Amino acid sequence: MVHFDSGQILNADSFFRRNLVNCLSGYKSLNLIGTKNAQGISNLALFSQVFHIGAAPPLVGILFRPHTVKRDTLENILERRYFTLNHVIPEFYREAHWTAADWSGSEFEATGLEEEFKGDFDAPFVKGSPVQLGCSLVETQTLQVNQTVLLIANVDHVFVEEKGLRADGSLDLTILETVTVSGLDEYHVGEKLARLAYPKPGVQPKAIDQ
Amino acid sequence: MVHFDSGQILNADSFFRRNLVNCLSGYKSLNLIGTKNAQGISNLALFSQVFHIGAAPPLVGILFRPHTVKRDTLENILERRYFTLNHVIPEFYREAHWTAADWSGSEFEATGLEEEFKGDFDAPFVKGSPVQLGCSLVETQTLQVNQTVLLIANVDHVFVEEKGLRADGSLDLTILETVTVSGLDEYHVGEKLARLAYPKPGVQPKAIDQ
Repeated sequence: MVHFDSGQILNADSFFRRNLVNCLSGYKSLNLIGTKNAQGISNLALFSQVFHIGAAPPLVGILFRPHTVKRDTLENILERRYFTLNHVIPEFYREAHWTAADWSGSEFEATGLEEEFKGDFDAPFVKGSPVQLGCSLVETQTLQVNQTVLLIANVDHVFVEEKGLRADGSLDLTILETVTVSGLDEYHVGEKLARLAYPKPGVQPKAIDQ
Repeated sequence: MVHFDSGQILNADSFFRRNLVNCLSGYKSLNLIGTKNAQGISNLALFSQVFHIGAAPPLVGILFRPHTVKRDTLENILERRYFTLNHVIPEFYREAHWTAADWSGSEFEATGLEEEFKGDFDAPFVKGSPVQLGCSLVETQTLQVNQTVLLIANVDHVFVEEKGLRADGSLDLTILETVTVSGLDEYHVGEKLARLAYPKPGVQPKAIDQ
């Protein structure tokens, strides 16, 4: 195996280091975050740092890294408190990636992704996304170590394409064609191995049938 | 599309709600965390809540949810400060899942996964894992909202199988056969769509060749 210690990582070329360290945790979630700014102009940004925080109440967390990510999304959420999360599918992952370019106006107009408003929810969803969440800000915390901001939000609304919702509440991400990302720029869909039964001592976990 | 508002989610059956909410963020990273307890007994636990925090210094974050996850791993890290992260592959994802059963002794002995010690690093790696990280505790923070603990750690050592390390530092997770998880119990490998070029306004991002 190839070995790097932390000194070698710190002394590596910064491009090599960013690529390597961004791959270390494995596959990452991929979501387009839709917001409106103070003037009401829509914003859309791609994030790989959205994760589960709790089920009751339903909470998600998002990490915002100060120096590597545009802060428009964070500022918009702090200003207006509402935002959307939208799964990405193969049909529009190139446009999703393109939202990260340095656009001056709305990333919807720039990339051709279509915005969708639902009821009176104050942020744009991505039309055609198979899993769309309407969220509201709960709290933020800043990490001492590198000024990363952790934002916690409540999931106010879940919209999911019926074909991907199982009777037990789980989502079939392969049927929904949800995309995942590794590193900074590599996109994948999932190829299912199995669902496994609840783990108990003495009984090897069997595959379950849905 | 099927729609749930937060009231419907809160009033749903708890099994349905946990399945649903755990799927909302999309695919998740999957890592076996290896630790030793105060008595020196090895512990191994499967986590889907490991993520990138920063590249210089190389930092990872882990979320520990108080009520749904055994706390042995967190206690061991607070006690001894060192732990390992190990990618899971199809060859042993069933054993990885099985570590979550309520074992009384070491999960290595219980599940048949083999521990591997490297140099004087004070925590066990998982033999056969293609990406193994040796990490040390930096800080912890507790979230007000639900007492989730966010642990930040430095990456002291990276071991990666040579076949999966590209010249630009990125890892080819499909060659390494890294496994990802959705929801609580569904395992997948990645099927690559493409790597995409650095996004710029006015130029649709092209696929890049590695």
